[in-house]
Amino acid sequence: MPTIDLLEAHAVVDCVLAGAGVPPAHARLQRDLLFDAEMRGIASHGLLRLPRIVERIANGVADPETRGRHEWRSPGFLFVDGERGLGPVVAQAAIDALLERASTQGVAIASIANSNHIGMLGFYADRVAEADRCLIAFSTSEALVHPWGGRRAMIGTNPIAIGLPTGNGPFMMDTATSVVSMGEVHDHANRGAPIPLGWAVDGAGNPTTDAQAARRGAIAPFGQAKGYALGLAFELLVTSLAGAAIGRDVKGTLDSSDVANKADLFIVIDQDLSPVYGFLEQLRAEAPADGFEEVRIPGERGRELRQRAITEGVQIADVTWNILRDLAGEQATSN
Amino acid sequence: MPTIDLLEAHAVVDCVLAGAGVPPAHARLQRDLLFDAEMRGIASHGLLRLPRIVERIANGVADPETRGRHEWRSPGFLFVDGERGLGPVVAQAAIDALLERASTQGVAIASIANSNHIGMLGFYADRVAEADRCLIAFSTSEALVHPWGGRRAMIGTNPIAIGLPTGNGPFMMDTATSVVSMGEVHDHANRGAPIPLGWAVDGAGNPTTDAQAARRGAIAPFGQAKGYALGLAFELLVTSLAGAAIGRDVKGTLDSSDVANKADLFIVIDQDLSPVYGFLEQLRAEAPADGFEEVRIPGERGRELRQRAITEGVQIADVTWNILRDLAGEQATSN
Repeated sequence: MPTIDLLEAHAVVDCVLAGAGVPPAHARLQRDLLFDAEMRGIASHGLLRLPRIVERIANGVADPETRGRHEWRSPGFLFVDGERGLGPVVAQAAIDALLERASTQGVAIASIANSNHIGMLGFYADRVAEADRCLIAFSTSEALVHPWGGRRAMIGTNPIAIGLPTGNGPFMMDTATSVVSMGEVHDHANRGAPIPLGWAVDGAGNPTTDAQAARRGAIAPFGQAKGYALGLAFELLVTSLAGAAIGRDVKGTLDSSDVANKADLFIVIDQDLSPVYGFLEQLRAEAPADGFEEVRIPGERGRELRQRAITEGVQIADVTWNILRDLAGEQATSN
Repeated sequence: MPTIDLLEAHAVVDCVLAGAGVPPAHARLQRDLLFDAEMRGIASHGLLRLPRIVERIANGVADPETRGRHEWRSPGFLFVDGERGLGPVVAQAAIDALLERASTQGVAIASIANSNHIGMLGFYADRVAEADRCLIAFSTSEALVHPWGGRRAMIGTNPIAIGLPTGNGPFMMDTATSVVSMGEVHDHANRGAPIPLGWAVDGAGNPTTDAQAARRGAIAPFGQAKGYALGLAFELLVTSLAGAAIGRDVKGTLDSSDVANKADLFIVIDQDLSPVYGFLEQLRAEAPADGFEEVRIPGERGRELRQRAITEGVQIADVTWNILRDLAGEQATSN
């Protein structure tokens, strides 16, 4: 896996996005989102998503220009028609509006429909926490997860992220309600490696350790019935507020030709907070269990990896880096 | 386990609460909360909690009269000083204020400090959903759960509940972020039964199947690192908004003499929602996996059990029922 200087890698991605007709400010946001995931070691939400984004723009199911149409349905409730915009562009425009509104209202919510994949939710949660506010973020996806006790994918991976200031830097956690991402299953399949029992069922709904079979099946919810209940509740809440598609009707988060019809939900809280950094210090000082080196704080390993990538360069899978350079080369030739 | 007529059981509890000086409207709410859990089969949050509530009133750490002091810090943000009030009384007063405020604001939040145990969060979520609004509810507790990779209880069981209308009745889910409740561990210990590996660690922080040893140890977060991240995020969010105690400093949710210093958080959303009942019907119609009779919707089994208890009587553990009748007898004698 080559380590690429961050500015060099940025230049390649900027070239690809400019060639796809993405205005510079929007390109910077889309790029920063993808790099943020890549640098934190979440490659499934990183640069490998870029070719699909370019295809979606070319196919007319992603509009690189719009920031979405905002409609304040109540003083604290913003409905956003994403107008097929790029996920991070529409999301950040909504969050900017929420930050301003929450400064007077105390809390403000945005429900987003008709927007493209918004990537790693933790990106937004971290930024809002850096700005000394709280963010609770939700998003839905295509059905990839089986109900606990079921056989078929019926529910999205439906992540939640929470960011808040601690009095000494941000706290951020971000987790899907599936036990693992479908990207992880694909990665095992590509390497010919088995997956642990409990991760997924095959196309007939039976537990499997065969990653190839799991690709045609469904991923398990995390934590059995509890994770199923959470993922389902998030899907119902986010979808019914946005009037978006649900369950197996959701499309456009993985392919390059369907209009994205999932939904996102952001809650911004703007209040004086009592500092909780000392408690995180207490957790760090706890004796680790057997098999663990330390008690970790969610989000901090990713932050360390990101810092290292900024100074030492970012590790990008060969196949991804080659595709990106080819895409940039095509753009350079065609422009 | 005797099955008691609901009205007879109500009368016994009403007598106990009246004897403890709880005004009738407050007693009704506290009673309904405890019965709701008992009837849904969640005995750990049911009537066995009543003797402790009575003791707390007698000890001056629970005030049966107050509904809490409300301070709107922003148009959408309510801070509640619970003034040591009974948990459900303070919680319901806050939710009533949120329901009214959210009808114009779209969303409203209440952060509650200095209130007693609010019981099963699903009670409130179900009621708000019945009123065609959404509720997201959080609460913290004394440290009972170890961080993933840790050895000691550092974090509360920190439940979340979500209630929302579906277009055909309420949806409600309610789950702790621990793999199991400490009540369940105590129940195993009392029966001399072992607990499954993975539920808890002993006092030295080592995995154990000995329920007695687990009582002196800590419960595991559900879903390993993911449940730890969620439980920690909830504790930081709820606590820092309320300025309440955190981690091992939290007291008064299990004992009868310490002032309760945990916190609660309610988010009420009032918006037109697209119906999602059809999706729940799809889930119910899914083929069940091996070992399952059906695909279940969270909250529905409890609702069925409650309905049955209303018509056929409520099952109450002998020991609990005897204690309640003794308490009611003492009240009758002393009054």
